[in-house]
Parts: sequence; structure tokens; C-alpha cells
Amino acid sequence: MLISRLVGERSKTTPSDAQFKSHALMLRAGFMKQVSNGIWTLAMPAKRIANKIESIIREEMDLIDGQECLFPVVLPRDLLDESGRYESIGLELVRFKDRNNRDNVLGMTHEEAAVHLARNTVSSYQQLPFMIYQIQTKFRDEARSRGGLIRVREFTMKDAYSFHETQEDLEKYYKKVYDSYIKIFKRIGMKNFIVVESDSGMMGGKVAHEYMLLTPIGEDSIVICKNCGYKSNMEVAVSKRDKIRSEEFKPLEKVYTGEAKEISEVVEFLKLKDNTKTLKAVVFNIKGDANTNVLCFIRGDLEINEAKLKKVVKKDIVPASLQDSALVAGNIGPVGLNENENLIVVYDDSVKGLTNVVVGANEDAYHMINACEGRDFYANTTFDIAKVQKGDKCIVCGSPLTIENGIEIGNIFQLGTRYTETMNMNVLDKTGKTFHPIMGCYGIGVGRAIASIAEEKSDDFGLIWPMSIAPWHVYLCPIRFSDEDINSKTLEIYDNLKDHGIEVLLDDRDVSPGFKFADCDLMGIPIRVVVSKKLLEKNELEIQLRESKEKFNVPIDNIVLEIQKIITHAIKSHC
Amino acid sequence: MLISRLVGERSKTTPSDAQFKSHALMLRAGFMKQVSNGIWTLAMPAKRIANKIESIIREEMDLIDGQECLFPVVLPRDLLDESGRYESIGLELVRFKDRNNRDNVLGMTHEEAAVHLARNTVSSYQQLPFMIYQIQTKFRDEARSRGGLIRVREFTMKDAYSFHETQEDLEKYYKKVYDSYIKIFKRIGMKNFIVVESDSGMMGGKVAHEYMLLTPIGEDSIVICKNCGYKSNMEVAVSKRDKIRSEEFKPLEKVYTGEAKEISEVVEFLKLKDNTKTLKAVVFNIKGDANTNVLCFIRGDLEINEAKLKKVVKKDIVPASLQDSALVAGNIGPVGLNENENLIVVYDDSVKGLTNVVVGANEDAYHMINACEGRDFYANTTFDIAKVQKGDKCIVCGSPLTIENGIEIGNIFQLGTRYTETMNMNVLDKTGKTFHPIMGCYGIGVGRAIASIAEEKSDDFGLIWPMSIAPWHVYLCPIRFSDEDINSKTLEIYDNLKDHGIEVLLDDRDVSPGFKFADCDLMGIPIRVVVSKKLLEKNELEIQLRESKEKFNVPIDNIVLEIQKIITHAIKSHC
Repeated sequence: MLISRLVGERSKTTPSDAQFKSHALMLRAGFMKQVSNGIWTLAMPAKRIANKIESIIREEMDLIDGQECLFPVVLPRDLLDESGRYESIGLELVRFKDRNNRDNVLGMTHEEAAVHLARNTVSSYQQLPFMIYQIQTKFRDEARSRGGLIRVREFTMKDAYSFHETQEDLEKYYKKVYDSYIKIFKRIGMKNFIVVESDSGMMGGKVAHEYMLLTPIGEDSIVICKNCGYKSNMEVAVSKRDKIRSEEFKPLEKVYTGEAKEISEVVEFLKLKDNTKTLKAVVFNIKGDANTNVLCFIRGDLEINEAKLKKVVKKDIVPASLQDSALVAGNIGPVGLNENENLIVVYDDSVKGLTNVVVGANEDAYHMINACEGRDFYANTTFDIAKVQKGDKCIVCGSPLTIENGIEIGNIFQLGTRYTETMNMNVLDKTGKTFHPIMGCYGIGVGRAIASIAEEKSDDFGLIWPMSIAPWHVYLCPIRFSDEDINSKTLEIYDNLKDHGIEVLLDDRDVSPGFKFADCDLMGIPIRVVVSKKLLEKNELEIQLRESKEKFNVPIDNIVLEIQKIITHAIKSHC
Repeated sequence: MLISRLVGERSKTTPSDAQFKSHALMLRAGFMKQVSNGIWTLAMPAKRIANKIESIIREEMDLIDGQECLFPVVLPRDLLDESGRYESIGLELVRFKDRNNRDNVLGMTHEEAAVHLARNTVSSYQQLPFMIYQIQTKFRDEARSRGGLIRVREFTMKDAYSFHETQEDLEKYYKKVYDSYIKIFKRIGMKNFIVVESDSGMMGGKVAHEYMLLTPIGEDSIVICKNCGYKSNMEVAVSKRDKIRSEEFKPLEKVYTGEAKEISEVVEFLKLKDNTKTLKAVVFNIKGDANTNVLCFIRGDLEINEAKLKKVVKKDIVPASLQDSALVAGNIGPVGLNENENLIVVYDDSVKGLTNVVVGANEDAYHMINACEGRDFYANTTFDIAKVQKGDKCIVCGSPLTIENGIEIGNIFQLGTRYTETMNMNVLDKTGKTFHPIMGCYGIGVGRAIASIAEEKSDDFGLIWPMSIAPWHVYLCPIRFSDEDINSKTLEIYDNLKDHGIEVLLDDRDVSPGFKFADCDLMGIPIRVVVSKKLLEKNELEIQLRESKEKFNVPIDNIVLEIQKIITHAIKSHC
């Protein structure tokens, strides 16, 4: 490829609206262009990276017997009515009417389409297990797309669906995909990623894992035990709680606390040592039902984990407005609470056995002190709805936990029979009885993988692509291309490299060496090969490696072999 | 791949709703499943065929310096407002509002997206010419999807856009794509296709060609001169008209014709020799404007070509309802016609110089005889709005024309500056002046290519895939796979073939040979390899070729070489 014709202008200035390094560099290198909020066009270099990632994914999926299919982008409403997701998914699902006034959606994931293909087509247990996958465009109408390809509305995703007769068989296959994903991320050159337990969210199912690139810009919080290796997405992370030391019950007393509403204000007003001797009340509403309040009690030093709470109430929740509620904002407490049918009370595990703590008095400007669970109020059923905090003790080994940020780069779920049941997929077992196959599903976003690697690997000069996914292997950089000798020698080398399957971007422009080197660095091409008068006199070429900045000369006659060696070595080193 | 796990049930019965051979066979072979009207899931075999076709297209596009990009499926309305297509395209363009109430569409073609990527990115004539392309999902809300993958609503398409400084340069490049397309269709194994001149339709521009597979099921009519090679889509086809022999003007006379309205009725009523001595009137309405009639006059033996007529009136037309019109249906004629502002009269070239013909008298139950153009009425401006008919004389060589049916499998257009002008893409020329680049655009539908080949190549037993795009090269067919010897030997051969890059579908089922052979034939795998006790005793395997039905034995040790030879030979023979 000649750079003079390459569509995509390189620029020295960081775009003002670029939120992340990867976003800024991909724009500056001319790899992509925004068409609309969260909707991008990939220019040639980015598309080449995407193609290479897709090839690696395809190879690995085929190795674990994946069957590549193609499901539609546009799905009829009927299909999502069967699973119930037409109603249950929110605004991120694009719905539209076609010319015949029929309802359709744009596919976000394809569980329904996968079951649609498999049901009636697969009829016997002998055809199980199998896995079908596709690499296809998805659309998710995100409220907040951001950061270039990190969070978009339209994206290319590999989504896979496996079908099994038994949970055991699913787990066996799940482990295969688990390992396959690690191979994929290594092969595309990702370094600092981990696998964490995660919430299976709207997908249904129970066991789920996320692959997370650890990076400060990550929107996810990950709880990590550096001692035993426990890793979990904050949404489902748990920690070990200290036992509550037993204490004598002191007399319950109502005290004036004036304007003190927040825990910190109450602590200050009452001159408490810290917030562990308080009880925090947090109120939510069931989404779409402003009349029902979900009132959570938790020890004052802890925070509510909304993902856990959602699982407890089994509904979507939103922060409450207390305007029309009987609850006294800032003074809510479990003692003398006016319970009614519009109030769901949820106690965190930390409340059980709490002694002599400050609680709201359900009366403006008043709190109670020395409230005791088991005497003044009863947390008969408690749940773990607390956020793990930095320094909490690891549930496995008791060591202090750390919290890091991560970007989700892949996920795997044990789905169960949620879709095969609702969509009525029946398969005959050995004895002739029907069963609903147990499913797993597995996703990797291609665009996000590109952005994540750009985020992980770059320097002050620009992008640094791992060899396995670099848009081109070699940036061929003649100094004075207009010179006849240089020109003909360069074209000879260009053809020679290409003939040997080496991908070359030739800088055929009449610009200064510095300008060319800067573009090469910005675009992150792994190997720079310089052709100059001086080098040709010695019958040599200069190689510079983008990542290590290592620089050395090689005889022209060796150039193909030398570069093949570098490529092979680099690709091996990923794995 | 093991056939026991392959998702996709094979069936002996032709589905009742299958319109074409390709449709029926693809369904029977379990290659695809309909999700909704004109929306399909491709199962593994079909997706493998698609991947191979896409690879061939990609290779050929890259050979003519194409830059692969990826444009979005969802496009914002703004972009199509710039080109005017948001308004001008009908219901086939899906429009929907996103969560922020913004208008979006599903891309049908991506001229706007291509210009969006290139404008401001390409600023100098030195960066021209270039071609950008993608292989991506499109959606077109067809009123009548049909025939499996022949006419669908959602489809994968390769669309390419080239940008040039001069018309000359466009034409040079256009020729390259023209040839490239021929190579592509040959490489994927298409035989009976031709290139015809075509109408550029809603794309704008003037010169355009279509690649047509000749087949009785084709919806397009193609005019062909078997003598000189003239080929054209009926929409734009022209033919040579005989000169009108001069005749003496006879006196104009009004005659009673009763209920005779159609030309054939008038001919019969007046006992004319044939319909060449009559004048036919055909009336249309401008679409969306029921008040304006387009009245066409044409010689009685000819038909109106609506595509040509649309170009003349430069608006979309629909058959007219004459209910509220002053025109007398069945008796309309040019003599004494009450012309007014709501009537557009268009004369076909065939009307010029007509002498002594029968025309409507604009009065119920009456016609005029012996009407003469130039005496009784005046066709001062005439247009070619006539359909070419079988036997018409070729415009080039005068030989009689034939008409065949075809399916459009690809198209190329010289677009001109329609999009770069409206979307304001400016590039600087040598002298520093700006110009709008001249565009070409080029499309191939992947799914339709699959269906077309299935339509072209098949027999009573099933599909016949050309080697270059076959889902697998080899169908490995052990007789009695449960036998230990057969089993181990088959698996050895299976691995050996795969290790040498040969794609194998292994029939690992415990079913009869006949059942296996039937599935192999139905799925159209080019090479069947049989493993049996008898053959193993002779240390041989049996090869049968799907297309030629040739059958022969080969020593087991030669199997890889033999099959490689067959594959290479078959792939070469396409080109």
C-alpha cells in the first residue's frame, strides 16, 4: 500500500474531545472517523487490525469445534417476545416498524436467533454438544457512548452459543472457552488482563466470568486479592466480615440531631469516634413504580452494591425520590418504622447483631442512640448487599483486598435453560424423553479489543501495535523517494517483501525523513525499514523496531529473512 | 468437522414454499433458515461459502488498490439529508428514531458514508485516485422478498467507491473494476453470466453496467445480439427502427368503433392487417400527484419502457387512474386532444412520420382513421420510450435481437459528482483550485452470488459447489464407522487431510451408505472419499467427483496428493 493514497489524515494535534489516549491516537493516526454519536467508520488501517483480530478469534473458535454462522442484524419482534426480552430490555434495544407495520429490533445479542436456528434442526442428544458462533454487527443504543471505540453504539462482536445435555457437559465446555479466550487475548497481544467472576445481568444464568483489561480508564471496579488470586467484578464481589464483638445493651434513647442527616453529619453532631456505630438507610424505587420504596439498612461505614440489591429484589431499581413518601429523609431508622405494603425493607448482613448504634428516629431532627438489633428491631433475614471496600478481608484467604479499574474485553456465561425453555427447544434424550438443552454464551467485542490494546500499548510518539494484529508489518521509508536510484531500489524491496507475504506500507511521499518517521511512529507499525543513499552505498537497510526502539542495519539481501524472523519471534512472544 | 454435530437438518422433501431450485436445495441441505420475511440465518456450510466468496472479492479488490473500510449499518439522517436521499428514497429505506429522538436509517448503500470518510481527510489531487470498499450487512425493506437468498431484505454486500480528478481517470479505473468483476465471478465458479449496459437508477450518474447470470428465473430482461455481442438491460436497451415508407396521405375520417378500446380490439373491429398502422395511447400519473397525467403515444405494435419514460419526465411514474380525468379511456388520440397544464404529452420516436394510422378520436366509441403526423397532429419532439422486442434490429449491427432473463449479480456505476457536490467534498487541484472528485461505485451481493451459483449448478441429487467456494473440499464417508478398523483408519485419513489444509466433512454417523451418499450429493461437496473394508483390503480409497460423477480408486498413501491435484485443477479451471 502506498501511503500517498491511504485515506486517513494524520495529525499532530490531539483532538479536544478525545477522552482517552487510545481514542486520541486512533483519531490522530487517521484510523477512524465518527459518523454519529457512538457510530464510527473504520478506515483501512483499523479495518485491517479488526480483520486480524477476527481471524484469530475464528481460528480459536474453530479449534473448539465452533460452527461459524451468520444471524441477522434485524430480528422480528416475535422472536424476542418468545424470550420476553422485547419487553424486558430498555431503551438500548432499537425497535422499529417495517413497511408492513411489523415490529423489528436491531440485534444486541443473539440468544434468540441461536435457539431459532437450533430448535427443530437439532432433535437428538446425539447431536449435542455443539457451539455456533458469528462475527457480526450489533447495535446497542447506549445512553453514554464514549472514548472512541471503548463504548460505542454500533460494534462488531463475536458471539457464541453452546448447547448441552447436562450441566456437567456445559461446565466442561465452558472451561474450554475460558481457556480459548485467554489464548485469544494473548495472541492479539493483550498483556495486563485478568478473568473475574461477574454478574450475568440481563443474560440470565448464574456462573459468569469477565475478561478485564486492567487500566485506570476502566469503568468497572475489580476486587483483587493479591495473596490468593481471588478476583471479582465489584458487582458480585464478596468479602469476609469481622465478627461483631458482643457488648452490653445500653438503654435506647431519642436525641436531637437538628440538621444532621448524612451519616458523616450525624457522626460529627454526636461526636462519635467513627461511623461503624451507626446504621445507614438508603432508599430506592422499583423502576417504573414510583410508589414502591426499597429501604435498605446497612452499617454506617458500608455502601450499597446496587447490582447485589437488584438480585435480592429481582427487579430493576433506581435512586428514590422521597417526595410523596412517608419516610423522613435523613432520619429513617428501623425502630418504630411505619411498615406498609409499599415498602420493601432489606437488611444487609452487617446489620445482624449490631449493638448500641445510632439509627434514625423516623422524625425530623431526631435520631435514636444505643439501638440494638435483637432488642429494638429485628433483622431476621439479611442479605449481602454491601460493596466490597479496599482493605476488606478476602473471602478465600482473609488477606486485604485491593480494587482496580478495568475494561471488559470479553465475557462468558453459563446461561442454563432460560432461552431453550421459554423458546421451547426440545431435544430427545437416550430414553426418548425430551429435555431443554443447557446453554452457554460467550462474547468478545472486536472494536473494543482494538481500543483496549491501543490504550495498553502506546507511547508519547503514538500507537504500538502487537505484530499479530498490526495493520502492516513494515513501514518502508525511503529518504528522497524522488531520487531515481532510491526509487527503483525501494520499489524492488517493496515488491520483494510483498512477494514473501510481508505486509508493507510504503511512504512514497516527498516529505522530510522526520515527517515520515513521525507518521510511522504515530501509526504504530512494528518494523520501520529505511532506505537511503548512504545505506545503499553499504548495501544495507536500517531496521528500527517500534516497541523496543532497537535499531540496526542489515544487508539488503537478508532483508526478507531478517524481517520474517522478527515477525515470527514477535508473534510467538505473545503466547 | 463431524457431520453428527453439524447444525442443519437435511431433508428429502422439497419445501412447499420454495420458489426456485436454489431456494429448495439450500433449505433441504440445511444451509440456512428463515428468521423473518426476507431475513435469513446462514448455518455453517452457507457461512463457509460466504466467507470464501468474500475472500475472493477481497483479494481482487486489493489487487486494484482497494482500501477495505467498515462503514456503519446505522446512519444518521443528517448524512442522507445532505445528499437528498433521506427524502427521495421510498419505503425500502428503514427509518427509525433512537433513544434521543434522533432520526436514523439502516444503510442500503454507502455513498454518503464513503464521502463522509473521504471529505476533509483527502485534500489534495495527489491523493487521488483511490478506492475504498467494505463487505458489510445492508438492509433494504423490499416489498417482495422471494426465492431464498435471491431477493432478501437483509444481505451482505461488497460496496466500493472510487474517487477521481477527471472523467478520464474514472473511466480508466472503471475498466479495471469491470475486468476485476469478471475475474471474481469466474473465480467463484459462475459460468453463464454476461455484462450488460444498465440504468443507473437512483444512484445518479450515467454509465452503468450490470453483471447478469442468465437463467429462466431471472427477473430482469436482457436484450442480446448474438451477432455483434450488444447486450443491454431492457430498461435501457435500444434498437434500430425501420424507416417509415412514405405513403400518400389519405383523408382523415372519424369512424364508429363501439366497445373496441384495446389496440387488438380496434384492429379486429376495423379489420386491419396488423397493429402497426395504429397509434397507442398509454397514460401514467406522476407518483404522488394524481392530478398530473403523463400521456404517451407510441406505435401500436410497441410497448412503453417505463424506465426510459421516467428518465424523460425525470419523475417517478405509476399507472394512471383516469377516473377524474378529461381523457376518454380507450379512445385517446393526438388529434383534437384537449391539452392543458395537467397533461404531459410524450411522443415515442416511432410516432414521427406515421401516416394513415388509426388514432383515438377522444370521444367514446370513436376512432379516427388515416391520421397523419405532420398533417393532423405534430410530434415535434420525440423520445425513445419504447421497449425493445424480440426480433428488433440490433442498434449496432442490425441483426435480430434476442431477449433472455437474468439475475443481477453485480453492478458498476459511473456516479459523477452527484454526491461530492451535494455533500461538499472539495479537493485542491494542481493550480490550487478546488474541485469535486468524480466518483464510481461498485457492488456485489454475497448472498445472491451463493444463490445464483446454486441456481446455475445443481442436479436431481442436490447442490454442486464449485471447488473454490465449496463449504468443504472433501466428504469423508466411512462405511461402518463403528467398526474399529474403519474407525481408526478413517480418523487417520481425516487428520492427515486436515493437516494438509484440505477441508473435510466427516460423516461419523451410523447410517447406511446410501443415506450418507445422498447427504453428500445434496450438500454438493465436490469430492467424496469412501472408506470401506473392501477398499482397505486393497489399501485403497474410492474417490467420486460430485460434478462429473467420475469414480476411481486411489492408493491410501496417495490420497493427499491426489486430492490436492483435484482441488488445484478444479480451481484453475474456473478462470
